[in-house]
Amino acid sequence: MRLAELSARSGVSTATIKYYLREGLLAPGRQINATTAEYDEDHLRRLRLVRALIQVGRVPVATAKEILGHVDDESLGRTIRLGAALWALPHGPEPDEEDPAVVAARNEVERLLTSLGWETARELAPLSPVYRSLVTAVATLIRLGYAWDAELMAPYAELMLQVAGRDLDFLETHGSESERVETAVAAAVLFEPVLRALHRLAQEEESARRYGLQ
Amino acid sequence: MRLAELSARSGVSTATIKYYLREGLLAPGRQINATTAEYDEDHLRRLRLVRALIQVGRVPVATAKEILGHVDDESLGRTIRLGAALWALPHGPEPDEEDPAVVAARNEVERLLTSLGWETARELAPLSPVYRSLVTAVATLIRLGYAWDAELMAPYAELMLQVAGRDLDFLETHGSESERVETAVAAAVLFEPVLRALHRLAQEEESARRYGLQ
Repeated sequence: MRLAELSARSGVSTATIKYYLREGLLAPGRQINATTAEYDEDHLRRLRLVRALIQVGRVPVATAKEILGHVDDESLGRTIRLGAALWALPHGPEPDEEDPAVVAARNEVERLLTSLGWETARELAPLSPVYRSLVTAVATLIRLGYAWDAELMAPYAELMLQVAGRDLDFLETHGSESERVETAVAAAVLFEPVLRALHRLAQEEESARRYGLQ
Repeated sequence: MRLAELSARSGVSTATIKYYLREGLLAPGRQINATTAEYDEDHLRRLRLVRALIQVGRVPVATAKEILGHVDDESLGRTIRLGAALWALPHGPEPDEEDPAVVAARNEVERLLTSLGWETARELAPLSPVYRSLVTAVATLIRLGYAWDAELMAPYAELMLQVAGRDLDFLETHGSESERVETAVAAAVLFEPVLRALHRLAQEEESARRYGLQ
């Protein structure tokens, strides 16, 4: 397809596509003559991912390039490739290790992972920005005086493991390895708002079931 | 307790507490003499909620006041009171009803709620910003070319209903009705980052279990 069709099918303006091409976020099309290039379905898929990262996920262009580098690195195994791409996403502020609430939170997260037997999550903890963002979030609850501990978190973590199982089932319906990693990254950015909205809607429903609509 | 102790126990500076008092986000203390007021545990709890809303949830002061008005409105039943407070939280952009992706998304969300038998969520749909934010999130997925439909969402929604059940179990361990509504609002703001981090951590764990750490 030509640039105009790529733009129409992706909903991304030709000016923005040209910008992504210049920045190396999108591979050049096959040059047909001096002024015309031909694009294919791979370009369309990649363009949608770039748009998801930049427009929805508000990921800076440099970070998007780093993420795409991991997506395309066929020398890595799936967990590491996926992990590297997901770890490059923005994860919020780093925990302040001097803060007593952070120390308490880290202790509870550690107890949680041990009690659940999440061996990999524990093993990756020193490296993982995901682990650190959990510590930060729990520390905020503790700092504000909510008694939040490993026992309270465990049933949520078990349910989230089921959600993650669904996520991976969904990925496995997709074709190539690169396509799966791409889809996982797009899903991490695009799917979190869906999950949050479903959670809030479920709170409405469950509250009405328990206490009635009065 | 005096202002200084309220500040020490909440981690909020005395200047900020005075600002919240002036804005009516915090009830005045009991005046002991011309320059000294006495505060109690209710003040401390309310102060933590205000801080959660403004500093963590980035809720504007006017919105925080509106939310607290709902929390304190004892004339309403629990579901409505809780709903009104949660609905006043920021919910992201409104869906554009002219957009075909929004029409398709609304259709899938409608099918989802019907298939699950979430009667209240359907009944509240015309009013609920939570419902609209789900439509917006699903429309974004559809617009970017991901085939996302009611069947794919159903297992996630079922899991989120279990999460919501846990949320309400947690609330029920709290004292008065106002305290429960307060806790629900704080939890909505503070707990979502925990849930998101648990979800990402569960993805790491599940991926390593399925595909190994290579």
